[in-house]
Amino acid sequence: MTEGQVIGEQPSATRSARGSSQLVRALSHAASAVDRELARVLPAPHGLHGRVQEAMRYAITAGGKRLRPFLVIESARLFNVDPAYAVRAAAAIELVHTYSLVHDDLPCMDDDDLRRGQPTVHVAFDEATAVLAGDALLTIAFEVLASEKTHPSAEVRCQLIARLAEASGSNGMIGGQMIDMEAPNQSLSADSIILLQRMKTGALFEFACEAGAILGQASAEHRERLRSYARDFGLVFQITDDLVDALSTSEKAGKAVGKDQEQGKATLISAFGIAGARGKAEQLALHAAETLAPYGATASALQELPMYLLDRQS
Amino acid sequence: MTEGQVIGEQPSATRSARGSSQLVRALSHAASAVDRELARVLPAPHGLHGRVQEAMRYAITAGGKRLRPFLVIESARLFNVDPAYAVRAAAAIELVHTYSLVHDDLPCMDDDDLRRGQPTVHVAFDEATAVLAGDALLTIAFEVLASEKTHPSAEVRCQLIARLAEASGSNGMIGGQMIDMEAPNQSLSADSIILLQRMKTGALFEFACEAGAILGQASAEHRERLRSYARDFGLVFQITDDLVDALSTSEKAGKAVGKDQEQGKATLISAFGIAGARGKAEQLALHAAETLAPYGATASALQELPMYLLDRQS
Repeated sequence: MTEGQVIGEQPSATRSARGSSQLVRALSHAASAVDRELARVLPAPHGLHGRVQEAMRYAITAGGKRLRPFLVIESARLFNVDPAYAVRAAAAIELVHTYSLVHDDLPCMDDDDLRRGQPTVHVAFDEATAVLAGDALLTIAFEVLASEKTHPSAEVRCQLIARLAEASGSNGMIGGQMIDMEAPNQSLSADSIILLQRMKTGALFEFACEAGAILGQASAEHRERLRSYARDFGLVFQITDDLVDALSTSEKAGKAVGKDQEQGKATLISAFGIAGARGKAEQLALHAAETLAPYGATASALQELPMYLLDRQS
Repeated sequence: MTEGQVIGEQPSATRSARGSSQLVRALSHAASAVDRELARVLPAPHGLHGRVQEAMRYAITAGGKRLRPFLVIESARLFNVDPAYAVRAAAAIELVHTYSLVHDDLPCMDDDDLRRGQPTVHVAFDEATAVLAGDALLTIAFEVLASEKTHPSAEVRCQLIARLAEASGSNGMIGGQMIDMEAPNQSLSADSIILLQRMKTGALFEFACEAGAILGQASAEHRERLRSYARDFGLVFQITDDLVDALSTSEKAGKAVGKDQEQGKATLISAFGIAGARGKAEQLALHAAETLAPYGATASALQELPMYLLDRQS
């Protein structure tokens, strides 16, 4: 399978090279826009409690691919949403994603000392500050969404808030992390591992894509189409993340690798094997792209993104 | 100072006895209503991730005085708000208060094994589950507020969400806990201790009272009056809480006492002494009651509550 098969009639190699460099530019452009917005919405550290606000900024500026913001911004584009609104919603999702990393890294959870090559928040500060900074990042995400700067319609803002809470709550991201914490003690079936991933990382991807449709006040049909794309995308992301952990070197990946197997973590690779998992990811990437065909060229970045992830090294 | 001086012309002893038993009934009635709502909004534990949902219920059903819900319900009454809406907002605030207790009890924070005579969440479950259950309680609070069951106006719901996030965020409750974590290492001035308390416990009380005015779509003047009452109330609450810790026995209080001094915690008693702190609390209770005089008899429960707290043993 090549990108050409999915995206159009151009010779696949040309199309792939051009598409990929355009995609990289679009990713970088979205990341800059959301980073500026994050810098604006995070409180300036001040007073006796400045330490927790420093830790919030530390966690956010550690970087990352800003994939979830990109999904919001590109999905919003399909519905002609004002980019200023999309960037606000994108920032809110990145705040929630970042809080989840800060808490997942804690000694009582995954006990990670490094993230993206930097000391994690509880190492750079301390455990109490990391718990509080995570709490505050989650809290401010909802404050961002509730503001009229995010959308003129309060109804739209409430929908965003309700769906973000659902996606990141105990039947979504938090529930997935709960299963993951218990997983090493259990032997999970392939279906359970897929469920875990759909909750732990999938739910927030799903909301990121649906957020564009909500901002655009699109129909239930559009919202479901974006969610369907996101479900495929989420599994591609997770499989390629697991492949990096299983196959890459620490140097290339910029993080500890081989941890999943070491910790006996249930992954899609332990369920399907390396070739099986890669094959499944390619299939899902193709299906994700097909789902967005009705939106034509406007959707091309979203269509190319899962293909692009298949080549990731980190 | 007696309650009679504040509340009206009835002989103070009679008034006090009748007022107090009415207040106790009103507190108990509000607690039952909010407990029923909390049972409705919390997810039923199910699936592989049921553990985190069990921990959420465990934390919520550990009880407590439900003071914050009472403040919402009584404030809403001043503005003729449908009690069904007030109970929803009250439940949301109690969810946030409960999450803060779960996280504050963690080993890396205050390291408490008991709360209200029961094992704390990280003892009854484990640390990871306690972190996740706290996260999920915070998250669902915003989901409750975003729902149209809480108010027909999405604008009102967004105002509640924005104010709750502000009150419980890094410049409010979380910031206060951050200062408190660092306080034993510092010698705080009386002003700093008051600031700490205004943030750590005061901000959520302030929002609880203002929520009634927001639900009633009352003017900025009404909102400020309720916040002013709440600022006084919050300090009375904190001083009486500190007095219980300093003076009561474990048996009467149903919790460990003398902890503040042992841990070198900065309290209003360390700043003003026992007699000084009690005198200040009486003054504040009087002022709080006066603030609500314009609302007449409808406000009597709110007026009596700070007086009632002055007699608390637990």
